[in-house]
Amino acid sequence: MTDAAFQAWMGEVQARMERALSRLLPGIHVAPARLHEAMRYAVLGGGKRVRPLLCFAAGEVTGAVPERLEIAASAVELMHAYSLVHDDLPCMDDDVLRRGRPTVHVEYDEATALLVGDALHTLAFQLLAEQRLADDPGEQLDMVKLLAIAAGSRGMAGGQSIDLASTGRTLTLPELEFMHIHKTGALIRAAVLIGAACGTALGASARAGLDRYAKAVGLAFQVVDDVLDAEASTATLGKTAGKDSRQGKPTYVSVLGVARAKALAEELREDAHAALAGLGERGARLASLADFVVLRKF
Amino acid sequence: MTDAAFQAWMGEVQARMERALSRLLPGIHVAPARLHEAMRYAVLGGGKRVRPLLCFAAGEVTGAVPERLEIAASAVELMHAYSLVHDDLPCMDDDVLRRGRPTVHVEYDEATALLVGDALHTLAFQLLAEQRLADDPGEQLDMVKLLAIAAGSRGMAGGQSIDLASTGRTLTLPELEFMHIHKTGALIRAAVLIGAACGTALGASARAGLDRYAKAVGLAFQVVDDVLDAEASTATLGKTAGKDSRQGKPTYVSVLGVARAKALAEELREDAHAALAGLGERGARLASLADFVVLRKF
Repeated sequence: MTDAAFQAWMGEVQARMERALSRLLPGIHVAPARLHEAMRYAVLGGGKRVRPLLCFAAGEVTGAVPERLEIAASAVELMHAYSLVHDDLPCMDDDVLRRGRPTVHVEYDEATALLVGDALHTLAFQLLAEQRLADDPGEQLDMVKLLAIAAGSRGMAGGQSIDLASTGRTLTLPELEFMHIHKTGALIRAAVLIGAACGTALGASARAGLDRYAKAVGLAFQVVDDVLDAEASTATLGKTAGKDSRQGKPTYVSVLGVARAKALAEELREDAHAALAGLGERGARLASLADFVVLRKF
Repeated sequence: MTDAAFQAWMGEVQARMERALSRLLPGIHVAPARLHEAMRYAVLGGGKRVRPLLCFAAGEVTGAVPERLEIAASAVELMHAYSLVHDDLPCMDDDVLRRGRPTVHVEYDEATALLVGDALHTLAFQLLAEQRLADDPGEQLDMVKLLAIAAGSRGMAGGQSIDLASTGRTLTLPELEFMHIHKTGALIRAAVLIGAACGTALGASARAGLDRYAKAVGLAFQVVDDVLDAEASTATLGKTAGKDSRQGKPTYVSVLGVARAKALAEELREDAHAALAGLGERGARLASLADFVVLRKF
């Protein structure tokens, strides 16, 4: 796929997601209005939409229709958005800037930010249950299960808990990997598998390939995030740069150094490509997305 | 049903729920151990389990098996437990006592309490998706949807948001009712409807009766809570008494006075009984539960 074609596809999916999220979030005139306004502030008008892009690209593998994919991808993106709102709270990472704007608790207040995260979290599950997203309702229940396991105490929330406990400590590479597989990797994996589940069922080997791809991309995403946090500016990132090292958080850069972290990201990118080998042309978008995740500058 | 038989049934369901919740929550040796320990602290060893009782009693109407009901009831109870943990946080109600013990953020810390609530919230949905709970998977997806709508921004989280905004204000009775239908009523309604959905499908009129029952009991529960908050002691309640009036929160007692609030609870109890008229003997437990909710002293 040419780079221009891929860029155009990304732009289309991002625009479609903005419209879908805007439609699926309660309107600002629905009571309680302030909560709904703050939910929309937290979700709309920003973000790279990496998880929705992965969801759509995985849906291409199984021939899923965009009407299903935009709802499934919205569920995953709302789960991600809720985690950002809660992670930014003063009792967690205490951050004031996100996507180039004040974080929700700064723009509104802490109680509202807490409820915004809670309500987005619930809405994610509501979206997976309200409309037909898989050919078989039993498969759709599996989507709910996948998202729940990815987000829960043995997934994203658990990873955040390990992250908090590791601040100021030195981690080994396997410990760091364990943390990130939970904190970031689990939801990225769910985005890929849920996207694929919107279409026709995959055989076991194709599904295993997708899973391996998703794990590699999930880890690569975090490695690159750590490199960018160390090297890029706050203006470029739209969030506070250099925060991890100031907060004494272990990162791939603190454990491996920048050069080896970059080499690891490159290895994971190659592994992601290799995992797609059995899918042929159907995996082309996912391959381009692996490149995008690793080669991005923000 | 005799009072002794009802008491024995309550004790059995409560004991069954304690075992089920203990089994369904991750063990304290599963990583991240501190998070899992705190989740268990938040859920186990206390609480009247009103929502599970309603779930089981509604399951009797449709002949649901206890193996399904205990999982469905656990999902509803975890959703309730998460809301308590978040509501007790300093940025919300800032409470230090719950079920006679220090609240989660006091016993652990704020960040852990935030994640405990988040992880319980996710686990609730996981439970509704992991095992077969309804005869038809499409009906089980409806359970997920029911729970999500009950818990989200147009349900429990929305009610909490209205509650925060109303502190220090005088509300009219309809405004107060609107708040509590969302904050407490929605999840109680979900407990009843989800319990019933674990068995054979109900006809439209029986379902409408259950729904009317659930709404009356949900509101009665809150009216009685407000009366108890004004009249009972902290020791009896196991949570800080008299807090609502000190925090300037509108309650049924502040709006109606104690005598009229008690009369309203009695009216709602009668309405709950009337709503069960079409169910005959199958509604006996639900009828006793309506009495329990209104006549309880803690």
